[in-house]
Amino acid sequence: MSRNKIKLGVFGFGCVGEGLFDVLENNLGFKAEILKICVKNKEKKRRVNGGRITYDKKDILDNPDINVIVEVIDNAEDAFEIAVEALTKGKAVVSANKKMIAENLPELLLLQEKYNTPLLYEAACCASIPLVRNFEEYYDNDLLNSFSGIMNGTTNYILTEIFTHNKTYQEALSLAQSKGYVESNPALDLEGYDSKFKLTILLTHAFGVTVKPDEIFNAGISRLNNFDSKFAFERKCKIKLIARAQKLNSGGIAAFVMPELVNETNELYAVDDVFNGIVTESSFADKNIFIGKGAGAFPTASAVLSDISALSYNYRYEYKKKNQIANEFIDNNFFVDVYVRFADPAKIDVKAFEEVYERYYSKEDNYLTGKINFGKLIKSGLVNNSEVNIILLNNKITML
Amino acid sequence: MSRNKIKLGVFGFGCVGEGLFDVLENNLGFKAEILKICVKNKEKKRRVNGGRITYDKKDILDNPDINVIVEVIDNAEDAFEIAVEALTKGKAVVSANKKMIAENLPELLLLQEKYNTPLLYEAACCASIPLVRNFEEYYDNDLLNSFSGIMNGTTNYILTEIFTHNKTYQEALSLAQSKGYVESNPALDLEGYDSKFKLTILLTHAFGVTVKPDEIFNAGISRLNNFDSKFAFERKCKIKLIARAQKLNSGGIAAFVMPELVNETNELYAVDDVFNGIVTESSFADKNIFIGKGAGAFPTASAVLSDISALSYNYRYEYKKKNQIANEFIDNNFFVDVYVRFADPAKIDVKAFEEVYERYYSKEDNYLTGKINFGKLIKSGLVNNSEVNIILLNNKITML
Repeated sequence: MSRNKIKLGVFGFGCVGEGLFDVLENNLGFKAEILKICVKNKEKKRRVNGGRITYDKKDILDNPDINVIVEVIDNAEDAFEIAVEALTKGKAVVSANKKMIAENLPELLLLQEKYNTPLLYEAACCASIPLVRNFEEYYDNDLLNSFSGIMNGTTNYILTEIFTHNKTYQEALSLAQSKGYVESNPALDLEGYDSKFKLTILLTHAFGVTVKPDEIFNAGISRLNNFDSKFAFERKCKIKLIARAQKLNSGGIAAFVMPELVNETNELYAVDDVFNGIVTESSFADKNIFIGKGAGAFPTASAVLSDISALSYNYRYEYKKKNQIANEFIDNNFFVDVYVRFADPAKIDVKAFEEVYERYYSKEDNYLTGKINFGKLIKSGLVNNSEVNIILLNNKITML
Repeated sequence: MSRNKIKLGVFGFGCVGEGLFDVLENNLGFKAEILKICVKNKEKKRRVNGGRITYDKKDILDNPDINVIVEVIDNAEDAFEIAVEALTKGKAVVSANKKMIAENLPELLLLQEKYNTPLLYEAACCASIPLVRNFEEYYDNDLLNSFSGIMNGTTNYILTEIFTHNKTYQEALSLAQSKGYVESNPALDLEGYDSKFKLTILLTHAFGVTVKPDEIFNAGISRLNNFDSKFAFERKCKIKLIARAQKLNSGGIAAFVMPELVNETNELYAVDDVFNGIVTESSFADKNIFIGKGAGAFPTASAVLSDISALSYNYRYEYKKKNQIANEFIDNNFFVDVYVRFADPAKIDVKAFEEVYERYYSKEDNYLTGKINFGKLIKSGLVNNSEVNIILLNNKITML
């Protein structure tokens, strides 16, 4: 099989862009030439030959020699604009921008089809872990029942500092910030949006369901306090921020991002620091677990490189599940066991729960554990009450 | 993309064959029809309609309606014969037979090319874990430095019984046999041949090196005694049977199967029972870990199904590394730290070691630990001495 010659135009020369540059320079096997790198900041010194640097996107998008666009910029709106223009002009696109992909997947699907031009984004879903292509190729049947995992390295680093190194949430957050792990908009990491963007993308490849991120519930770890940590510690558990998706008997899909209590028999218990880990469950293959670095310049650049290399073999996502399965939808009508920590007992509507297992009141703080309908939970006042923290128990969803 | 209609001829209706039948029956998405199933034993009652059963391989190989052959029989020679005839006749082949593939890879490569017909064998390498295709597609560059892992579920089950449930080797072996986990030729599992076959196949896809299994050293777990287990227990370690491959500065590849001491910080420590686990290390992606069931009817059948489905999209292995990298070879000129347990001190040539770290003599048994050249080790009398057991320490190989 002969390979296409790849001539790259790169948007962005931050961590990932520089990482890609280094990876390409050091890679003795597959070669792809970077013709142009488009950056914003004219003041910043760059490590590459000035002739390759440009400040005008037209130098890349209108350059007939460039056949593949790599987009590793921060801003999702700009990234989308670039992707649209590139695809429209028949230039293949490799992107690491999870927000951009997740928010615009329907349009991006149409553009790929209309202009018969591929868009690859393995790096957008847990960086170095080959998830998109395995959901697309290997689990290419309807035997996949669920997937769940740690999809954000920053929060996992923070939680590891808390549960393995006994830090408080504030200490751990400061540490993560000092290491440059937290996005310029911290809520993206801390409130679970970043995990949700990856979940949204994977839903398309795993189950053929394409929805806007807004349709999926996300809670993060920013409300975590010492009382919550103690609850976990006492049960020899850690708290992990987990994105979860599961087929329901209704034909719908349960999908959400929430902190979960995880004990040491759980496959994700030992997935610490900036590592990500995903567990798939299929009727016949049983459990498969994928673990790897989910962030960082080199792991991300390495995934970008694999996509570029795949383009040289004319690889493209076929979105097979979308064509196989019709009418998949997000369904919140299922039950979860939760821990709810609250300041004001008067604001807790116990009747909303199917069953209350425990109630604990103390000067320090209060909690209850119980079973609740998920749709009811996320519409309740609990979710928007900053004095309440909710943690999923038992790592599963159930039907009554 | 339109899919090819798949009409299957299946050789073998044992565990995996029946598993595949069940998987296909239960799979609501991808459909493939089984036209004929060829079996040997005329006496055995079958769960399928008699019209589909045949005892004559010609009913499949000469059937123009059948375009894909699935081969899930035990005997490697018969399996090879079937694969050769099928490929020659332009029928795609899906095989789960690691021994057959590993021993005949050069010929099978030629046949695939000559007759332009694909052979897929994901199920042959750790059943449900998508290794072949990820080595082939995702690590499609020379940045992969090493891979290592637990590739045999039977020995891992036995070792788990010893190290997690305090059984002796003999008790654990009996238990594995009673569960039907041990192959009809037990040495295949226990002496590391099965792991070696998988290692041999993965070497081609990971590093482009195709060698006969004979060229790769394997040791198993059959010599493990209570003294060895105690040595591991005292160090809070488990022993795992690990297949290991690593690029060397020489341009060669280190590759072998050996028991290794594994401590609890190791990614494979918690991979227990019949699960397999593989760790890859790349210059930029860092570590990736893949875990899943490496044996069993359904996990194997599930991987076979993924291959059948891939054929419907014209997927084939490109053996990209073979075309990228020339002159890869197996090189045993490197160093390992080992534990050597021995009955007769007179038979231990201490001078063969670069360095001896410890020597321990007791009425019960004796051991030494030290650094030794691997090529020297495997040519030494230690390897064939049934009163000697060798275990790799530190999970790594080094150059001096």
